[in-house]
Amino acid sequence: MINRFCKMPLWECSTKLADVAMGRAPADMVITNAKLVNVCTHEIQENIGVAISCGRIALVGDAAHCIGPDTKVIDAEGQYITPGLLDGHMHIESSMLSANEYATAVVPHGTTGVYYDPHEICNVLGIPGVELMIRDAARTPLKAMLTSPSCVPAVPGFEDSGCVVTSEDIAREMQRDEVVGLGEMMNFPGIVGSAEETHKITGNTLKADKVVTGHYSIPETGRGLNAYVASGVRCCHESTRAEDVLAKMRLGMYAQLREGSAWHDLGVICKAITEHQVDSRFACMISDDTHPFTLARDGHLDHIIRRAISFGIDPITAVQMVTINTATCYRMDHELGSVTPGKCADIVFVKDLEHFEVTRVIIDGEVAAENGRLSAAIEPLDYPEWAMNTMHVGETITPETFRIPTEKKDKATVRVIEIIPAHVSDIERRAELKVVNGCLESDTEQDVLKTFVFERHHNTGKHGVGFVKGFHITCGAMASTVAHDAHNLLVVGSNDEDMALAANTLIQCGGGMCAVSNGKVLGLVRLPLAGLMNPKPNAEVAADVEQLTKAWAEIGCNIVSPFMTMALIPLACLPDLRLTDRGLVDCNRFTFVPLEAEE
Amino acid sequence: MINRFCKMPLWECSTKLADVAMGRAPADMVITNAKLVNVCTHEIQENIGVAISCGRIALVGDAAHCIGPDTKVIDAEGQYITPGLLDGHMHIESSMLSANEYATAVVPHGTTGVYYDPHEICNVLGIPGVELMIRDAARTPLKAMLTSPSCVPAVPGFEDSGCVVTSEDIAREMQRDEVVGLGEMMNFPGIVGSAEETHKITGNTLKADKVVTGHYSIPETGRGLNAYVASGVRCCHESTRAEDVLAKMRLGMYAQLREGSAWHDLGVICKAITEHQVDSRFACMISDDTHPFTLARDGHLDHIIRRAISFGIDPITAVQMVTINTATCYRMDHELGSVTPGKCADIVFVKDLEHFEVTRVIIDGEVAAENGRLSAAIEPLDYPEWAMNTMHVGETITPETFRIPTEKKDKATVRVIEIIPAHVSDIERRAELKVVNGCLESDTEQDVLKTFVFERHHNTGKHGVGFVKGFHITCGAMASTVAHDAHNLLVVGSNDEDMALAANTLIQCGGGMCAVSNGKVLGLVRLPLAGLMNPKPNAEVAADVEQLTKAWAEIGCNIVSPFMTMALIPLACLPDLRLTDRGLVDCNRFTFVPLEAEE
Repeated sequence: MINRFCKMPLWECSTKLADVAMGRAPADMVITNAKLVNVCTHEIQENIGVAISCGRIALVGDAAHCIGPDTKVIDAEGQYITPGLLDGHMHIESSMLSANEYATAVVPHGTTGVYYDPHEICNVLGIPGVELMIRDAARTPLKAMLTSPSCVPAVPGFEDSGCVVTSEDIAREMQRDEVVGLGEMMNFPGIVGSAEETHKITGNTLKADKVVTGHYSIPETGRGLNAYVASGVRCCHESTRAEDVLAKMRLGMYAQLREGSAWHDLGVICKAITEHQVDSRFACMISDDTHPFTLARDGHLDHIIRRAISFGIDPITAVQMVTINTATCYRMDHELGSVTPGKCADIVFVKDLEHFEVTRVIIDGEVAAENGRLSAAIEPLDYPEWAMNTMHVGETITPETFRIPTEKKDKATVRVIEIIPAHVSDIERRAELKVVNGCLESDTEQDVLKTFVFERHHNTGKHGVGFVKGFHITCGAMASTVAHDAHNLLVVGSNDEDMALAANTLIQCGGGMCAVSNGKVLGLVRLPLAGLMNPKPNAEVAADVEQLTKAWAEIGCNIVSPFMTMALIPLACLPDLRLTDRGLVDCNRFTFVPLEAEE
Repeated sequence: MINRFCKMPLWECSTKLADVAMGRAPADMVITNAKLVNVCTHEIQENIGVAISCGRIALVGDAAHCIGPDTKVIDAEGQYITPGLLDGHMHIESSMLSANEYATAVVPHGTTGVYYDPHEICNVLGIPGVELMIRDAARTPLKAMLTSPSCVPAVPGFEDSGCVVTSEDIAREMQRDEVVGLGEMMNFPGIVGSAEETHKITGNTLKADKVVTGHYSIPETGRGLNAYVASGVRCCHESTRAEDVLAKMRLGMYAQLREGSAWHDLGVICKAITEHQVDSRFACMISDDTHPFTLARDGHLDHIIRRAISFGIDPITAVQMVTINTATCYRMDHELGSVTPGKCADIVFVKDLEHFEVTRVIIDGEVAAENGRLSAAIEPLDYPEWAMNTMHVGETITPETFRIPTEKKDKATVRVIEIIPAHVSDIERRAELKVVNGCLESDTEQDVLKTFVFERHHNTGKHGVGFVKGFHITCGAMASTVAHDAHNLLVVGSNDEDMALAANTLIQCGGGMCAVSNGKVLGLVRLPLAGLMNPKPNAEVAADVEQLTKAWAEIGCNIVSPFMTMALIPLACLPDLRLTDRGLVDCNRFTFVPLEAEE
């Protein structure tokens, strides 16, 4: 794949690089006295110099002869250098930050490239939303490599999103320079079931010689996984068992081991590497979804590397899993993913491998960050009104809106979505609820809460109704316009008044997340950009998120990143039971199911 | 890179593959009961089935449900299966066989794909010669993936070839479907020296998103190698020391470990793998040049795998080095190089890994060979007259042609090319010769022989004169029109009469190789196709070659594949001293040097 994410294409500067390597022309920058983490040979090389010109690496080894009077010389003072870290699958929107603030947050942690799938903004604003994100990201040093959203809506026919992406859209999107592949093909039932339009979406990607990324979230590694891989899907980040990872690698699929803010899969699934003597070239590590507080406190891929090392993965292997393996997955290893001649000069300095503390980040031969801060501030984009005003709920929400009438007399058995903290899966349960005044009510003693999803894109007035378990709140309500993937307005609560307050709070502020109790807003994260993101700096957004987390705790919920888990309640491409604006979906059989169930 | 070497592009058959994997449609072929050499994870998997449809792999694992009434079922009976073997750099012309006879010879040995550089025929016939080879190869099951000749002539200004390839030619050639990259960039001095036209040749390849293959033949791994790699050269097969291999891999270059008929590098250079605990993903094995007798007696990549194992390379690693590593080098690993779903169904059956005896070869889902024989014969191509009549020497050659007058009286010191058996390098020596009748003569006692190179493409009447050492003949003469890379008429001999006979024998038969003595032709291999190849089957050509080898021995030469070593005498891109039709070339300083030298 031609790499469009560089200062200059190699064919325009190869003579200059040869001149620099040979000592006939001075380098723009020379790094001296570094320990190179060589991801090609899995070695540490001592006392290495790197000469850089035109944003690319001209020489690795003894670079003394490349230094001229105007060459910027950086003495690594014996620190380690690694290739720039690459996140092979992630959603910028999960950070709640704009693309430029996201870059500002992650680049100082060593991330020089992300393969991002902006399917959240695409669900709300369509292709224009994607274009807005491209424009926003382009002004940052981060290589924001686009995988074009493939499943908008996530599961057609089961939800209402702001936009629909067709196979013709994909054929057109693949012509963009910024697009390196297809975003996660979550519609694995469509692939496995040979659905024509779904295969046209992957097929149009393959025809454009770009990479199809995957999302195969069921613990089935036989026929279905084979059918999925055979259809040309190159990687998948949805493994929750070590055997899933192994099965994917054995089938030549890049297994992207995930460690997101809310989904802590790595500790379990990295056993595929640590407990088997397998070649790890088909293993990568990715973040998928990282919330602002994690970025502020822990970091990004540097944090994931530290986690990997703590789980027993060899440090060089861990670095390979976010550099050369990822670049090879995208067939961009001739341009990215290693500190070798000709490649983009994307280089990370770390004090030591164990703690992986990033001290300096070079992108395209420029110092992009030092000591935890971006070198140059990026002016925020002036986001257009259509992107900042996206709450189009077609009904006036009052406490009465949340009444759930039933024909049952005393008790009713209902289907309940039980969330699993720190995992993306849920479990379908049954609960027996008392009938009060002909209606079903939340029951905090059983931890069973009313849940509503309101369509918010086209004023249709549709809403779906369900119950959820696992948040352990004792009072109040929560709401969110981050509600995957259609990002309708999701409300969970213990009582109708607070649920109405939560919903209306978000409608009024243009979207976001909040927790309320007894008529009071305890925490609010405003996300006016598509109802998903806040253009402010991460420090501010993270502070709001922290306050919201405290608010959640105040009403009784103490799970990790509860809003991320809550936001998956409507995501019908994950098992078992989900709630969209159209109703409850059995996500194993892909049918709507009624709220009330047989015992 | 879009793979054009398949029965059907994946986007046209992905629904069918999913149907087969799921058991909704029967497979075309199912392999049962195999031990899979999994090159992705470096494992052996027992009792594996493979389902095949549309020439591609639909499923790997338990394939029983994919069998329908018309499915061809192959019971592997516990044999190993590996991906089809890929030769990452080779010249079909070295086999002296036409492309179709080459395929007939190598496919039964497990070779399913070659990345071939037809620069020999291109030097003689230009692009039309390359097109002829494309047509010839296309009728065979072998995936003949073209790397477009980059250096025709090999070292511009130092020899006369039949054709000149420019950077504009390369830009045009890169648009061909059959072209996957640029053939070996032998003009490394041009790359390292930032020569504009040379960089345009590599640049036009990079611009077309294809792979630049290399040839960096000097034992210098510092500035020069860095400059070469930085210019975008992705692989190199010219390593004669383990440290060269290591240096290339460390710089992110695919080190292609060579084991040709005449150049036995592997034993020494594989120590880069066996004696260092490095990741071997950047190591491949290639043949470069294999002569007919080797193909007939030893095989091809199967033989190289056996050699590698005998040198201590782990068998699975050895298989990786001719499958997935090679495919990844060419960024075709999404299509070739592993037995995994979606890939071309190119599969090799071997009895055991140690002896690597190939019993069956499947290409694009069809049995291409069984028990050492191609399944279907290929009708020979009717080669055009312009390709079969290429001896255009512009002077009448007589014994007098070979007189070398000197101004010296009794003795003269001359430069001598000393060949190194089984290696591509040579050494520049000095020899003191007696002057006889005002002329320099061959001196068999010192093993110093007259050597002439006659231009044979454009009737220019040019010839170059030198001396060579190392063949140990005691009488007679040898001649060859296989004389890299310009393939002019090369003659080496002990006396002028036999030299004239040898030269005229080849002129009369349209090119080839011969050994003569005392006015008698002892051995002759006719190569009428471009003076390089013989359209007859390998058995016949190999018999002629064997007879020629005996003839060489008869006149005193016992080195391995002497004609291959002799054929490199004019190759000015290799060190140290070479002879072209224009004269003696110092190949380290790239200047012509006189025959007579200071003592």
